[in-house]
Amino acid sequence: MDIIELLRREFNPRQVIVDETSLTAYATDESGEGPYYPRAAFLAQSPLEVEKLLRLASMEGFAVTPRGLGTGKSGGALPVCGGVVLAMDGMKRILEIDEDSSLAIVEPGIITQTLQQAVWEHRLFYPPDPASLDTCSLGGNVAENAGGPRAFRYGVTREYVLGMEAVTMGGKRFNLGRKSIKGVSGYDLTGLLTGSEGTLAVFTKLIMRLIPRHREPGIVLAFYADLASAARAVTALLSSSVHPMALELIDGYSLKNITGIEGFAPPAEAGGAILCEMEGLPDDDALLERLADILEGGDPLHIDVAMDPSACRRLWTARRNVSTRLKENHRYKISEDIAVPRAAIPAAVAQVQEIARRHGLHMGCYGHAGDGNLHVNFVTDDDGARKNFAMAVEELFVTTIRLGGTLSGEHGIGISKKRFMALEHDPNSLDMMHAIKKAWDPQNLLNPGKIL
Amino acid sequence: MDIIELLRREFNPRQVIVDETSLTAYATDESGEGPYYPRAAFLAQSPLEVEKLLRLASMEGFAVTPRGLGTGKSGGALPVCGGVVLAMDGMKRILEIDEDSSLAIVEPGIITQTLQQAVWEHRLFYPPDPASLDTCSLGGNVAENAGGPRAFRYGVTREYVLGMEAVTMGGKRFNLGRKSIKGVSGYDLTGLLTGSEGTLAVFTKLIMRLIPRHREPGIVLAFYADLASAARAVTALLSSSVHPMALELIDGYSLKNITGIEGFAPPAEAGGAILCEMEGLPDDDALLERLADILEGGDPLHIDVAMDPSACRRLWTARRNVSTRLKENHRYKISEDIAVPRAAIPAAVAQVQEIARRHGLHMGCYGHAGDGNLHVNFVTDDDGARKNFAMAVEELFVTTIRLGGTLSGEHGIGISKKRFMALEHDPNSLDMMHAIKKAWDPQNLLNPGKIL
Repeated sequence: MDIIELLRREFNPRQVIVDETSLTAYATDESGEGPYYPRAAFLAQSPLEVEKLLRLASMEGFAVTPRGLGTGKSGGALPVCGGVVLAMDGMKRILEIDEDSSLAIVEPGIITQTLQQAVWEHRLFYPPDPASLDTCSLGGNVAENAGGPRAFRYGVTREYVLGMEAVTMGGKRFNLGRKSIKGVSGYDLTGLLTGSEGTLAVFTKLIMRLIPRHREPGIVLAFYADLASAARAVTALLSSSVHPMALELIDGYSLKNITGIEGFAPPAEAGGAILCEMEGLPDDDALLERLADILEGGDPLHIDVAMDPSACRRLWTARRNVSTRLKENHRYKISEDIAVPRAAIPAAVAQVQEIARRHGLHMGCYGHAGDGNLHVNFVTDDDGARKNFAMAVEELFVTTIRLGGTLSGEHGIGISKKRFMALEHDPNSLDMMHAIKKAWDPQNLLNPGKIL
Repeated sequence: MDIIELLRREFNPRQVIVDETSLTAYATDESGEGPYYPRAAFLAQSPLEVEKLLRLASMEGFAVTPRGLGTGKSGGALPVCGGVVLAMDGMKRILEIDEDSSLAIVEPGIITQTLQQAVWEHRLFYPPDPASLDTCSLGGNVAENAGGPRAFRYGVTREYVLGMEAVTMGGKRFNLGRKSIKGVSGYDLTGLLTGSEGTLAVFTKLIMRLIPRHREPGIVLAFYADLASAARAVTALLSSSVHPMALELIDGYSLKNITGIEGFAPPAEAGGAILCEMEGLPDDDALLERLADILEGGDPLHIDVAMDPSACRRLWTARRNVSTRLKENHRYKISEDIAVPRAAIPAAVAQVQEIARRHGLHMGCYGHAGDGNLHVNFVTDDDGARKNFAMAVEELFVTTIRLGGTLSGEHGIGISKKRFMALEHDPNSLDMMHAIKKAWDPQNLLNPGKIL
């Protein structure tokens, strides 16, 4: 039977989207890949419906691509093989906030910031803060194991997923993980599904660990003449006893592009900056002094300090807009998300600058330096130079792997980086990933065409 | 061909142990299970030998049970199906300590404390601290995803395994994970293997994340009239803004059993105690005061403070000896390792006490309260009451699961808790674990009989 007919018969037809105009919303995401149109999108409202859809898919042999809010940067939510997009954004309830045990049970469609704000009211904190915080779904964060600036202090999404309810292709629903902080009972399937980009199971419920609400943070922003000096200051900070919540590096080209946002005014000659956010800074002068001492060792051009929440918010707004501004200010942009061992950051930055230069491209590079995670953006307005994007990206990955790094720090592989997997992973390792995929989804119908 | 003959032909015969006296060392561990004698033990010296042994095993169809230093508490290293024990304790070199990137590359047979001491010299810290710290192997810790008191602040072993070299049954060797802090490139096989109790692959190299050396810790020890008051003080601490490195609960019976060790002298009427270790306590009076304030809210009988390293060491020695002393002081002892959501700790403690009472057993209970992880010991000198151990343990697990907890906080399932797996995990979830095991080890020859 035709997929559309089948879906309309089995579900409420209002949950089945088929017209091309409406399907456009499900054909792209933030990766810039596609569009890839599905035959239909199904708006799930309950775990039972997810179960039923995945049972039908297995019986009828159609592909299903789960989707949160489409903010992914590697194409994980794109239906590259057609079939049905399983839209999870309707399942977004908070089912429980347990203050005493510091956990929340939620549906996967909830916006990450909504969860953060809800638990804050209960004197709790959910740390992961991807740039798309206010528009991304928690389920998408778990699927991609999202990070963000505060991952430096608090770790990535994986550290906060205690357990889940999930459904595999074929419609088997099961509970994984636990509600306790610790647990070593059987294989860590929760960890395996986190970051598996929707290729192994669809989440229908998430048990998230929370931590006590932190004290008021402050930000110290140090500008340096060149990126190498800024990178060296990062290294000095890392080996000190101060523990920032976030430790971000921003290169000169990125600084220029965000100048003016919310009054952001770097020195004109700045070639690099460090943004260091620390808990308790507004009322701890000794801490502030220790931090300033370390940053001044690198001979900065200028140091800015933001103590009140609104000043901090303005700085974060500027920082979070680097990618958007680079895109607005150039005709062509391609952005990557590498991670290297921390000590390799200065070398990575230098080599990436050299790659850009060789290919006649501009490069804006920024990111979570404390974690060795850099967002590298090649930009140009020139049609000729644009053709060098592919070559530059390939060289970027080769360089990254040679420095002991990885293809993706927090965006995932999806379709965008799939062809580079063999650069990083040896054949035996890829075989073992294939074996898991095959064991769980033998027909290769759940988000096919991703990662492997 | 006979296994022994084969091993002697293929390897240096001095690495092949076959006489029963020597094999005794490989027939038991710290679980109290067994003895289970293997046909032989093979003393591996290199990844290539591990590869070759696992290739031979697959071809000839004999079971292989990897073993670190045999300190496991759930029988994970016991060769319950005979075959060959693969002794990894000869592979114990430190291959690299990278100070700037805060990581170490080591062989799995290294003693955990040896690694800790080596990296400390480089101003780095490896946090996990299982009780067997000075006798256990790092590879065993990774296989069981070991915890320890400081897991409260720093997390369990899994948080520190960045990558590994591993060999699957059949002899495929591969590299997993990365050297960068963050990374989301393909399935998290490193996380899957951590805690898989040697059933999926044998580690031949481990890449461990390290953190900056912490400041000098101090310990505050608060004694309460009963365990419930102590448990309430734990809850108060958890919702405060102080961040202990370790937060331990000790019940009255355990306190009595360790009285006298290194001068440990609890008040005679103490029914419970909290041991709270905090970084920076020796030189931060404000912190000490805040901590004392919280603990005094629970109306303690007495508060002890240990500021200098040797006083702290003495307290830890007493605390670490609870299990040993309970064993020495009673004819029969059985110990379990449950974890519950933190808020359920007072209820768990009360219900466990009731289980012990009903079965005429003494109960010594202590553990990592901050993580909801409790070590429950039933003890008795009475032959009749001893027969109730099995029933008490079953009730303990039923209670634990009912409170939203898990069978094991840090010791693993092994053979000791295998029969209780269905209490915690639904059939679909167990099916998915089986599917992974089958995909990686279709002949079921790598550490068979464990977990599933």
